[in-house]
Amino acid sequence: MKAAVFHAAHQPLAIEEVPTPTPSAGEVLIKVAGCGVCHTDLHYIDHDVPTFKKPPLVLGHEVSGVIAGLGAGVTQWKEGARVLLPAVYGCGQCAMCRTGRENICEKMMMFGNNVDGGYAEYMLAPAKDVIALPDELPLVESSIIADAVTTPYHAVVNRGQVKPGDSVVVVGCGGIGLNLVQVAAAVGAKVIAIDVIDSKLEWAKKLGAQAMINAKNVERVDKEVRKLTGGGADIGFEAIGNPVTQAQTFSCIRAGGRFVMVGYSDKPMTLDSGRVMYREMEIIGSLGCRAVDYPRVLELARQGRIKVKELVTAQFPLDQINAAFDTLRKGEGIRSVVVP
Amino acid sequence: MKAAVFHAAHQPLAIEEVPTPTPSAGEVLIKVAGCGVCHTDLHYIDHDVPTFKKPPLVLGHEVSGVIAGLGAGVTQWKEGARVLLPAVYGCGQCAMCRTGRENICEKMMMFGNNVDGGYAEYMLAPAKDVIALPDELPLVESSIIADAVTTPYHAVVNRGQVKPGDSVVVVGCGGIGLNLVQVAAAVGAKVIAIDVIDSKLEWAKKLGAQAMINAKNVERVDKEVRKLTGGGADIGFEAIGNPVTQAQTFSCIRAGGRFVMVGYSDKPMTLDSGRVMYREMEIIGSLGCRAVDYPRVLELARQGRIKVKELVTAQFPLDQINAAFDTLRKGEGIRSVVVP
Amino acid sequence: MKAAVFHAAHQPLAIEEVPTPTPSAGEVLIKVAGCGVCHTDLHYIDHDVPTFKKPPLVLGHEVSGVIAGLGAGVTQWKEGARVLLPAVYGCGQCAMCRTGRENICEKMMMFGNNVDGGYAEYMLAPAKDVIALPDELPLVESSIIADAVTTPYHAVVNRGQVKPGDSVVVVGCGGIGLNLVQVAAAVGAKVIAIDVIDSKLEWAKKLGAQAMINAKNVERVDKEVRKLTGGGADIGFEAIGNPVTQAQTFSCIRAGGRFVMVGYSDKPMTLDSGRVMYREMEIIGSLGCRAVDYPRVLELARQGRIKVKELVTAQFPLDQINAAFDTLRKGEGIRSVVVP
Amino acid sequence: MKAAVFHAAHQPLAIEEVPTPTPSAGEVLIKVAGCGVCHTDLHYIDHDVPTFKKPPLVLGHEVSGVIAGLGAGVTQWKEGARVLLPAVYGCGQCAMCRTGRENICEKMMMFGNNVDGGYAEYMLAPAKDVIALPDELPLVESSIIADAVTTPYHAVVNRGQVKPGDSVVVVGCGGIGLNLVQVAAAVGAKVIAIDVIDSKLEWAKKLGAQAMINAKNVERVDKEVRKLTGGGADIGFEAIGNPVTQAQTFSCIRAGGRFVMVGYSDKPMTLDSGRVMYREMEIIGSLGCRAVDYPRVLELARQGRIKVKELVTAQFPLDQINAAFDTLRKGEGIRSVVVP
Repeated sequence: MKAAVFHAAHQPLAIEEVPTPTPSAGEVLIKVAGCGVCHTDLHYIDHDVPTFKKPPLVLGHEVSGVIAGLGAGVTQWKEGARVLLPAVYGCGQCAMCRTGRENICEKMMMFGNNVDGGYAEYMLAPAKDVIALPDELPLVESSIIADAVTTPYHAVVNRGQVKPGDSVVVVGCGGIGLNLVQVAAAVGAKVIAIDVIDSKLEWAKKLGAQAMINAKNVERVDKEVRKLTGGGADIGFEAIGNPVTQAQTFSCIRAGGRFVMVGYSDKPMTLDSGRVMYREMEIIGSLGCRAVDYPRVLELARQGRIKVKELVTAQFPLDQINAAFDTLRKGEGIRSVVVP
Repeated sequence: MKAAVFHAAHQPLAIEEVPTPTPSAGEVLIKVAGCGVCHTDLHYIDHDVPTFKKPPLVLGHEVSGVIAGLGAGVTQWKEGARVLLPAVYGCGQCAMCRTGRENICEKMMMFGNNVDGGYAEYMLAPAKDVIALPDELPLVESSIIADAVTTPYHAVVNRGQVKPGDSVVVVGCGGIGLNLVQVAAAVGAKVIAIDVIDSKLEWAKKLGAQAMINAKNVERVDKEVRKLTGGGADIGFEAIGNPVTQAQTFSCIRAGGRFVMVGYSDKPMTLDSGRVMYREMEIIGSLGCRAVDYPRVLELARQGRIKVKELVTAQFPLDQINAAFDTLRKGEGIRSVVVP
Repeated sequence: MKAAVFHAAHQPLAIEEVPTPTPSAGEVLIKVAGCGVCHTDLHYIDHDVPTFKKPPLVLGHEVSGVIAGLGAGVTQWKEGARVLLPAVYGCGQCAMCRTGRENICEKMMMFGNNVDGGYAEYMLAPAKDVIALPDELPLVESSIIADAVTTPYHAVVNRGQVKPGDSVVVVGCGGIGLNLVQVAAAVGAKVIAIDVIDSKLEWAKKLGAQAMINAKNVERVDKEVRKLTGGGADIGFEAIGNPVTQAQTFSCIRAGGRFVMVGYSDKPMTLDSGRVMYREMEIIGSLGCRAVDYPRVLELARQGRIKVKELVTAQFPLDQINAAFDTLRKGEGIRSVVVP
Repeated sequence: MKAAVFHAAHQPLAIEEVPTPTPSAGEVLIKVAGCGVCHTDLHYIDHDVPTFKKPPLVLGHEVSGVIAGLGAGVTQWKEGARVLLPAVYGCGQCAMCRTGRENICEKMMMFGNNVDGGYAEYMLAPAKDVIALPDELPLVESSIIADAVTTPYHAVVNRGQVKPGDSVVVVGCGGIGLNLVQVAAAVGAKVIAIDVIDSKLEWAKKLGAQAMINAKNVERVDKEVRKLTGGGADIGFEAIGNPVTQAQTFSCIRAGGRFVMVGYSDKPMTLDSGRVMYREMEIIGSLGCRAVDYPRVLELARQGRIKVKELVTAQFPLDQINAAFDTLRKGEGIRSVVVP
């Protein structure tokens, strides 16, 4: 089969002919239909972030496709079934998995990192972690649900505990941030979107934001948010991973409110600890999403309450994957999908 | 002022001239703009349910209006402000009020029951319990928010803990049931509406139900629901208060699911206690709504995610209030509003 | 090896020589040290309740022992390790398992029911479900933790959500009820124990109950509880599975309180549905316990906050197991352990 | 009456004869039996922290006493009743009060800060906020429950959500820290106490800590905690308000765990934001306690599960109150009580 193989950082992926993998017991073979192009891949390619499996490695962790083969003992799937893969999967046995927190499994595996991913014609996955894709949803574009949409679902619903009518602020309107906007809006929240690029705020508006603030145009973002919410947002999400916007988000939240950290940063954050204690603030980390939440996300997509197809702003054949990464590096569009 | 006065059961309300009330310390005078016509009023008039204040009593507990006078010490309101009244209010001092459960306050007061209500040109209310009505919402029709919409909000959000993408069954599509449908849909649930009258199911569809079941047309409602949900709804709401539909709702819910009782019944309910224990079912009562939830409900209405104006299917001047009750007795329309 | 084999209802278990089992991949072989004698076994023997595995079957689901052999791929255990087995185990893959509710797994397996259990010298168990037993706890007597103690832990902590200082009523002071008393007391609750046998109430007192009511000696149990609690217990547990005591427990609970059903009954329960709705009561089923809670239960035992050794009132060698069941039939003692 | 009056910072309190106050409507007059001596008072006296009421002011916010007079409309109390006062009280009308969070009321009032407190023979309090003191508890010493014990209860039970068997680390074993230890132990947690003074750690052991770490004697506290807990504590409490010990506490907690900030600091805290996000950590502020929790705390004290009398290591008559503050400045004993 054809695959885009990662050999080392600072060089393009190599389009190569490699052996089509064979499913072991408990695994299925997936014929990849689409694989979303994510910043996480750029971390390996451009920024020397090491992968867990030593290269050569097939990257790609936002996968839709069709079941093309069954390993021994797999009875719950049939060939031809339309499916989605979660970006990560848990061991199913550790304390985190067993308390409904498989997204922070102690032995978590990630496609395109611990094992080969979706920038290829075929790939393997554990049968227990494959998700059925409803007929109403488009096969190729739904690939991006696997990370770009489910991570925001978990952040909004499970970690943020956003309730209908709550006021919510989302700081950073890239791929994750815009989906935070649309999931929070789908839940019935009053969403205030914050960014420094007007085109992204226009996207936020299309996806359900009730108010938009270009942080470049106001003196103090928190004051604007306090005016719009009567004292501060109930819940704030930071989707960038930057100490400055983290502090900004925290300052937009009312007493007794919740600050959910969705963006990853390797830099320390400075926190007004007196305010945390005296106002009973909550700072909550959020990572990925559980497999059990996928059917709920798919239901929202099926109802049209969250948009998926519209967020796929470009498609690339497998052998033009490096052009897809260039688009990402330039910050063009929302999400590209590679179609092997 | 003019008022529709309840003197005794089994006789029409009397349209009379009575003294306009004067606000005491901590109270405001409201010029009533609209007052929703509710089954609860019929309980007093037709079914001998006693009121807490001995008649003569002005009924009516779904009130919108304008502040028309301020008692001593009231500083948070100005004359002319557009407002809504909650149907009930708590003492603010008992253990229930202090744990965020003022809706089951040990000394709860209800307009049109413990004190005079909204079927009059003017009425009194404690300043602390009055809710500001946003400019975008229509003054008269918003009266029905006070019970018909907020009771479902509390049932769906606080008691049912419905999450986006959950499957929800609503049994009984009258005034409360239809609002359960639209609030659950606004939260992002997949709603299955169940009734025996097709016109009500059509309303349910307009308000966001994804599937409708006329219980007369199927052999077993629970089997239909299990087919639609892959094993049972996550949460079920009974909005009638009938042992038969209570049992029916319970049987539609998956293992580990939640059954929320919203309809009041004075009859005992028979429960499969073995299933409750062995499948870890939850049966949860739900009553009214807290004042703090009103701004959230108003935000949903403001966004158009829940419909209010559309649910007001008739308006009556105060001196035709008895005709409004006839409409209710015949089961015509969804909600009538009396406009003094 | 020697085993006590169940062949059919209404006859004693047969002490037989059977092949010692061999662990498959992912399994361990356990040399049984003790196996608690439980009413559930009597259901099969005396009451024709069918077992999931067709007899011949080795009963017994409260097991402690020592690892005696390892199946392929088992790396987390060593021979000689002191361990406990949970009474049931989940598939690890269904939606319930993945949301932290493996105790209501759709494909739950029970030792001594779906597979051979602990009334034998050796038995098999999945390596993933075995629990390490701390050195400070006695090997033989700790067997009873596996059901008699952990089921109450789950009921009190996870389902009842008992908080320190809460008032709690426990109706029925048998093996499960007495452990509900001691776990609730360990959590800091004010426990009121109710039974009709004074000797059981004395046990309840020893295990931490603050008040005891012999239901035979009072006119109305609920009135007594209301006096002791100032209006009703926060949470009530029924541990018998009888419609009369279920109703009694429900009537002892305050408005807004929680009724946890721990005892299994195949009879319907009649519920005051008006009170459920109007007082926002909660009726909650509780079944078994999750593997992740075992370390917490063991910590309580290690600290001496809950008593284990004291609850084992008799030990029987394997070939006298039928005498152990006679003791249970007579209601003598609290818990017997069979020592193969 | 005699009172210790605060006139300005950096000078001793003045023992003066002042008019005995008269209760207004809704208030009661309390004859003070005991008033705990707290670091918060030292902030005003030694560190120029301003009080909300301009001096002259009677300080003191940990008060027990006896009802000595009733304002108009007070019917729920009788003269002679033994009572406790909460340190702070809410308005009962704001959104925080109405959602069960009166401890972060937007208009919170504190005795000995917004209004006169307990370093006097008599004082006033709102009738609605007075707590009945059970006969079994000592009148004078129970004064310290009002802050030193209830603040830890709220932190452990409501904010930390400590469950029985959880592993808990408490950093800082002063007045608040030692009570965190004993409340967490009363809930059934495995408590690890950390301080740099051995005598405080001995106190922690007496109050239920299972392990003690003198941070001076180990290279890395977090490594010791990880060894004792098998990977990190479930929940950590910081009771000092120091950036160094805040970071230390955070590093002792397992993935997915909770860090509760109880100590107040006016300095910023530096947080490993990557770990917060990637390990789904939770940082939770905790302030004071709600009135509704007092009966639960009193029940724990009544049962002897938490110690009160033992924590009062000195008593001072009112005119030696400045000596009591000297004791506090020297860090001697655990808690002093002034007895007017």
